Amino acid sequence: VIRRLTLIGLGLLGGSIAKAVRREGLAREIVAVGRQVERLQPAVGDGVVDRATADVALGVAGADLCVLCTPVTTLAALLPAVWGAAPAECVITDVGSTKAHIVDTAARLAAGRPLAFVGSHPMAGSEQSGYAAARPDLFRGALVVVTPGEAARPDAVKRVSELWEALGARVVAMEPRAHDRAVAAVSHLPHLVADALVAAVLRMDPRFVDVAGAGFRDTTRIAASSPAVWREIFQDNRVALREAVGAFRSVLDELEALVTSEADAAIEAELERIRRARAALPERPR
Amino acid sequence: VIRRLTLIGLGLLGGSIAKAVRREGLAREIVAVGRQVERLQPAVGDGVVDRATADVALGVAGADLCVLCTPVTTLAALLPAVWGAAPAECVITDVGSTKAHIVDTAARLAAGRPLAFVGSHPMAGSEQSGYAAARPDLFRGALVVVTPGEAARPDAVKRVSELWEALGARVVAMEPRAHDRAVAAVSHLPHLVADALVAAVLRMDPRFVDVAGAGFRDTTRIAASSPAVWREIFQDNRVALREAVGAFRSVLDELEALVTSEADAAIEAELERIRRARAALPERPR
Repeated sequence: VIRRLTLIGLGLLGGSIAKAVRREGLAREIVAVGRQVERLQPAVGDGVVDRATADVALGVAGADLCVLCTPVTTLAALLPAVWGAAPAECVITDVGSTKAHIVDTAARLAAGRPLAFVGSHPMAGSEQSGYAAARPDLFRGALVVVTPGEAARPDAVKRVSELWEALGARVVAMEPRAHDRAVAAVSHLPHLVADALVAAVLRMDPRFVDVAGAGFRDTTRIAASSPAVWREIFQDNRVALREAVGAFRSVLDELEALVTSEADAAIEAELERIRRARAALPERPR
Repeated sequence: VIRRLTLIGLGLLGGSIAKAVRREGLAREIVAVGRQVERLQPAVGDGVVDRATADVALGVAGADLCVLCTPVTTLAALLPAVWGAAPAECVITDVGSTKAHIVDTAARLAAGRPLAFVGSHPMAGSEQSGYAAARPDLFRGALVVVTPGEAARPDAVKRVSELWEALGARVVAMEPRAHDRAVAAVSHLPHLVADALVAAVLRMDPRFVDVAGAGFRDTTRIAASSPAVWREIFQDNRVALREAVGAFRSVLDELEALVTSEADAAIEAELERIRRARAALPERPR
């Protein structure tokens, strides 16, 4: 059981952790930290958190588990304050969608003061955001990647993994840079490509969307996501994103040359190889 | 009412037309033409068609409406035999997903023998194929683009449009080349891009799909389509597809440079412009 859980940031992810932990009775006390303490009042009012404060040091004092749930670009800036105030036995994690930057920051801080940090990336979300959209089952069935750095303590990795599993998630561990390359390939690249598909049609002729069917809608669904959230993700993972875009560009060029050729058998063989790989993906409920 | 409807090809689309026309009582007689007449027996057996033949001339004789429902690359090769055998008052259409080629072929044939041809592209389909997957409500709520050529007779355009509307579809008319450019942009390009996304991940590291979420699944859903069908579509519309890929490539390059820059406001403005355009697309049931 967690003695005192401190959540820095109480939006969709932080709020959903709080609601799930409260409902499951996983922590004796839940403390929320936010820049504008009045925005945390709904969570105090409905009993999901016990205390709310705008003071990081006050919020983190006495915590044995601390989860940073702010937007990805402010995580690394917030970490030194959390690091300085957390008790020696506190385990710290986060919910950022890129991991190398925050894990490197933690490693630098750990050189000054040894503390346990393990990165987390819960692959759950929604087009909605904010505490009002938070729900206790957000992580049920979701995948959470935990990214221990080289110096991470096994007991801390276990502690963080057990939190996510208690919320119903499936946990896999990855090295932080491998994680960032993987999400660039299967998440950030598809987002950028979906954006580019919409922008390309707007450039060619906006009226073309009048004949768009289910294929265009599926392929571009994620282009309707939050500009502020995705601006930060793209920027934060730009090195891995550029690598993924480069691989995609080469593949697209080759595929375009192939499918506009007369090499019927080679075209069908390549499309079949791709079809099989896609068909092998499980259709998860979320 | 249709006196005699002849369907050349009785797969998913031809079969669905036959079932819908029969159910609605739109034709007195339905004749099916297929290369292997024994494969048409199920449709004769269940009363959906009245006669089946492997002979195009025999099947088309006496028809007042004829719909070519074969794969897109065989449409133009079949048209001369249909053209030679059809009665003078027959109106001919097709269900091909590209239109310039078939409309041009019809215009050349019309120079020899005046007959009414109007291209159709029903934007309905499924991952399934064949008569067994055909269903009378396939076109309900679907969009059908009709593409009269320059010399098309208004009464023939009306006749073909009324057929689709009677099957529950929404009909819009477009010039054949405008149609091909539009579907290249909103259908064929997204397909190629979905294929390239899957192939790019396979090239980078196939294990990356282990962290794929709903975004990757949505964006690549259409990569699981039939290789034989899509090989033909890509080849048949290669000119317009190359134009669309070119526009997409330019947009992707610009977008990549933008989102990996520090120009926060410009990034969010562009992502917001795209988000709005995508959000304006209606979510249709199919």
